[in-house]
Amino acid sequence: MTPAAALEHILHNEIPISRAMGIRVANYDGASLSLDAPLAPNTNHKSTAFGGSLYSLAVLCGWGLLHLKLAEVKLHRHIVIQESNIRYLHPVVQDLHAECRLDDAAFKQFLRTLEKHGRARLSLDVIITQDNQPAVEFTGRYVVHG
Amino acid sequence: MTPAAALEHILHNEIPISRAMGIRVANYDGASLSLDAPLAPNTNHKSTAFGGSLYSLAVLCGWGLLHLKLAEVKLHRHIVIQESNIRYLHPVVQDLHAECRLDDAAFKQFLRTLEKHGRARLSLDVIITQDNQPAVEFTGRYVVHG
Repeated sequence: MTPAAALEHILHNEIPISRAMGIRVANYDGASLSLDAPLAPNTNHKSTAFGGSLYSLAVLCGWGLLHLKLAEVKLHRHIVIQESNIRYLHPVVQDLHAECRLDDAAFKQFLRTLEKHGRARLSLDVIITQDNQPAVEFTGRYVVHG
Repeated sequence: MTPAAALEHILHNEIPISRAMGIRVANYDGASLSLDAPLAPNTNHKSTAFGGSLYSLAVLCGWGLLHLKLAEVKLHRHIVIQESNIRYLHPVVQDLHAECRLDDAAFKQFLRTLEKHGRARLSLDVIITQDNQPAVEFTGRYVVHG
């Protein structure tokens, strides 16, 4: 099973709302992760994407990327979202697509802190795009510990 | 149909994820709204409440309260979430309960701005409690327009 398929399996089996949302792992290349979800199960009263679904996709995109990066270095730790901010720039009227990137230098610095203190924080930015333009900007502070 | 029952009907019929989450309108007294959801469909990989579900419950609690207050003064406008911040203080290990309050003076000021400009913003705080203590703090900025 590829890392991307393993992540999708975890999401669907351990976070049931991700299955109700129809979340799929679209791509993982070692530095960035993208998640997709169809619009239909995630609409609101205006037939655009529900703000809560956009948030859930974003928070799982950051969580999933950190999970995959830690698995690559054989670290299986708790990853918890501590605080986040989300800005809705434009209504999303098509299927949902989120992307998160973590550059290698930032990840290595994070690993050094984690090794030293047994606990480390990392801020991740997630963008939900529409026609290749940002529609939603999310920043989440994740905590990883024992 | 009571305003609370009408709101629940709107949530379940127009925002399908709210039905998957099992969201119920627990109480509305004219100044505050509380929403509940069972833990089971909203768990994460650690069997605590998924951060995305907590966010969705909170954003709908603020949206629902504003919807009910506007309906009381016969205003049926678009209510859109523009930006929000959420802080997770403690893991939620029981059924979810969110509360939002809007005092009369703040709502009247908001209505004056809306009447004058055809558009107005309102920040609402939502608390998710556990054993009557805050477990999650949410602040959302909502925009109401034509």
